[in-house]
Amino acid sequence: MSTFTAPAVQDDYPDDVAHCYGCGRLNADGIQLKSREDGEETVAYYTPRAEHTSVPGFVYGGLIASLIDCHSMATAAIAVLKRDGRRVGDGLAPRFVTGALNVQYLKPTPIGVELEVRGRVKEMGERKCIVEATLSADGVITARGDVVAVRMPDSMARPGS
Amino acid sequence: MSTFTAPAVQDDYPDDVAHCYGCGRLNADGIQLKSREDGEETVAYYTPRAEHTSVPGFVYGGLIASLIDCHSMATAAIAVLKRDGRRVGDGLAPRFVTGALNVQYLKPTPIGVELEVRGRVKEMGERKCIVEATLSADGVITARGDVVAVRMPDSMARPGS
Repeated sequence: MSTFTAPAVQDDYPDDVAHCYGCGRLNADGIQLKSREDGEETVAYYTPRAEHTSVPGFVYGGLIASLIDCHSMATAAIAVLKRDGRRVGDGLAPRFVTGALNVQYLKPTPIGVELEVRGRVKEMGERKCIVEATLSADGVITARGDVVAVRMPDSMARPGS
Repeated sequence: MSTFTAPAVQDDYPDDVAHCYGCGRLNADGIQLKSREDGEETVAYYTPRAEHTSVPGFVYGGLIASLIDCHSMATAAIAVLKRDGRRVGDGLAPRFVTGALNVQYLKPTPIGVELEVRGRVKEMGERKCIVEATLSADGVITARGDVVAVRMPDSMARPGS
């Protein structure tokens, strides 16, 4: 499923705010998560590196939180584009930052397989967006997230930095 | 404050479960967080790497979640040692895994400074422990966490792996 070819919203984040370790295309050492529209949902895939271990055989919780976090910000950005009658790939995408991140770890997530992260907007406000997300390994949901995404305040954008 | 010399509980995690990206002393590519007792609280310090950026100038939320997560597991482990009349450094420490991780991002966390993570046990059960945590930069709390730590099930420990 990682061969999905719809455009990724992170490729449309403005250059000056495209450095996130989790999803910035300009962060060479980061994860470079790519989130795409998939009907009413959004989806992203990532295969953890060997060092992303918790105890041997399983993925560490911080990476799971990171994937849910970044994919939820992307889900909010895609939702705003759609609300405004635009599409991913048609120009710059809006940037969200995390207000709150709640992750439930339902069962251990095996390492060594591609993970699937799915998102769906639960509530959309003017500045805030609440996103639900799931993370699956081998078709089994191992974690769930509820995330508050907030439009990035101007004070965080520092063009040229 | 990172010169604090009390023993770190992660140094007493059993070898077969000391590979966590966030806090395992046997993970050469990881963060190797060190959590120590400090009166009724616990404390850990970490200076993010340059790549741990969200937008330029600030720390990405996934790292903040990771620090709160691993420090909370350590806080639970320290609490069990104390409950059992033991001390950090007196032998193997119990290992916890994350049941739920709730992080509130109160304000952007600046990058380039040492972060302080503090933990405190809110509730202690037989298998579960609820931990409250704060993350501060330059003396200002920028994130808060509420974390459910669960004693690691035997099925996750695979000695020798």
